[in-house]
Amino acid sequence: MDEPVSSSARAMWQEDHASRGLGMRLEHAAPGHARLAMTIAPSMTNGHGICHGGFIFSLADSAMAFAANHTEGLDVAQHAAITFIRPGHVGETLIAEAAERMRAGRSGIYDVRVTTTDGTLVAEFRGHTRSLRNRDRKET
Amino acid sequence: MDEPVSSSARAMWQEDHASRGLGMRLEHAAPGHARLAMTIAPSMTNGHGICHGGFIFSLADSAMAFAANHTEGLDVAQHAAITFIRPGHVGETLIAEAAERMRAGRSGIYDVRVTTTDGTLVAEFRGHTRSLRNRDRKET
Amino acid sequence: MDEPVSSSARAMWQEDHASRGLGMRLEHAAPGHARLAMTIAPSMTNGHGICHGGFIFSLADSAMAFAANHTEGLDVAQHAAITFIRPGHVGETLIAEAAERMRAGRSGIYDVRVTTTDGTLVAEFRGHTRSLRNRDRKET
Amino acid sequence: MDEPVSSSARAMWQEDHASRGLGMRLEHAAPGHARLAMTIAPSMTNGHGICHGGFIFSLADSAMAFAANHTEGLDVAQHAAITFIRPGHVGETLIAEAAERMRAGRSGIYDVRVTTTDGTLVAEFRGHTRSLRNRDRKET
Repeated sequence: MDEPVSSSARAMWQEDHASRGLGMRLEHAAPGHARLAMTIAPSMTNGHGICHGGFIFSLADSAMAFAANHTEGLDVAQHAAITFIRPGHVGETLIAEAAERMRAGRSGIYDVRVTTTDGTLVAEFRGHTRSLRNRDRKET
Repeated sequence: MDEPVSSSARAMWQEDHASRGLGMRLEHAAPGHARLAMTIAPSMTNGHGICHGGFIFSLADSAMAFAANHTEGLDVAQHAAITFIRPGHVGETLIAEAAERMRAGRSGIYDVRVTTTDGTLVAEFRGHTRSLRNRDRKET
Repeated sequence: MDEPVSSSARAMWQEDHASRGLGMRLEHAAPGHARLAMTIAPSMTNGHGICHGGFIFSLADSAMAFAANHTEGLDVAQHAAITFIRPGHVGETLIAEAAERMRAGRSGIYDVRVTTTDGTLVAEFRGHTRSLRNRDRKET
Repeated sequence: MDEPVSSSARAMWQEDHASRGLGMRLEHAAPGHARLAMTIAPSMTNGHGICHGGFIFSLADSAMAFAANHTEGLDVAQHAAITFIRPGHVGETLIAEAAERMRAGRSGIYDVRVTTTDGTLVAEFRGHTRSLRNRDRKET
């Protein structure tokens, strides 16, 4: 878990305006695993005074993207499901840890656990990716 | 579809820093239906140069929240799944239209379709809500 | 809803040992829509004395397969999610009504509602299909 | 993995007409983990000549039920999603291995991997359970 962020992940991170703009930090990234952190800002709260689920999803989705960043191609999210276990509150730092569940052919499944820094479970996310090749960009 | 936004939805919207901060507009909100719009900003792009899926999810999730905003209680998202059909590009305006699929006891299911303004399908979302009452805040 | 079952659906039904073996009846089938019925037999009950969720899923999955049976190829289920709303009891007849939610390129999304004959909601199902062509059978 | 089947699981198995009727074998069952096997019979094939997805779902769902069978109550499936990776063929034996992903309050999440006996991945399943108590049977 203390390996450095891979160079391809670092390059991808530089282009990832969305994740950096939300204040995410890339703590670990290697093929098959990634860990990102994000602190809940007041601007992320919804009408119920708690963190809008979309930001929790975003953190998990970014963690998946970095875990799925194998060298051979471009993997994009095709489908994802998230279960919200406990609300997130302003000032809390969330940790998203993504692990590859399977990868076969052009499909991958990634599980991401989102917790607070003391390990309390906030959300469970499962995402499905698909590798794109040139012909898919035209066809799909 | 041209009814005004209900007054309870308007009050909820005022508190929804997250949705307003992302530039969403609340176009319609009544129990069982809501429509929101959001224009994709450059700050929303990920490492692949397209809209980060988290913002598309956020728009759909907000639409569900307003469609689920019946008067009798507080409905929160418990589980949601999203299928990404086509990327979103900077400058495009996305429309999320949420419709209640079912509501029974304390559970609800909402389907949200996210399209561009010309009707091109971008994502399909299905979310599950649960009404909270006081005792649940302690128990769950 | 009272159109006859299409001839291609009828041919597919003849080969569908699984659906027929579970006692399903094909009531309607046309591209984009299908309706099947199944009566819960004692052999379908689980350890809690109610219908095993797998049979409810099977009914919904079959309904999707017939709604997805367009003429141009073979559509298979790739991913499906089901929400169980109310248990099914021995002797009840379940109706699964499948409707196409979207179909673009090689992907489709189908929503299936499972009810009792008096319209009580038993389960909501959303399935994703993918059309196979020859090259996919090798590649995927 | 070679612990005996717990006595409460054995009692539940005796009542599980559905799982036994489909030819499932209960190989392992303890709180948080279960492993079941099932051989694909000709009666399980669909119109495409491969195992109907409903039977694969049923096997995974049963595995979840036994992994969720903690002593304190009755846990039922509330929502489940399955991804089909590779078809199942007549005569193959499928193994479903269920592991508890989380359990908090009255909610649980279980991941079930379905493989052939040589370890080839057939499906990935994630299910959500909810513990029932007496008052829920009336309310929900």
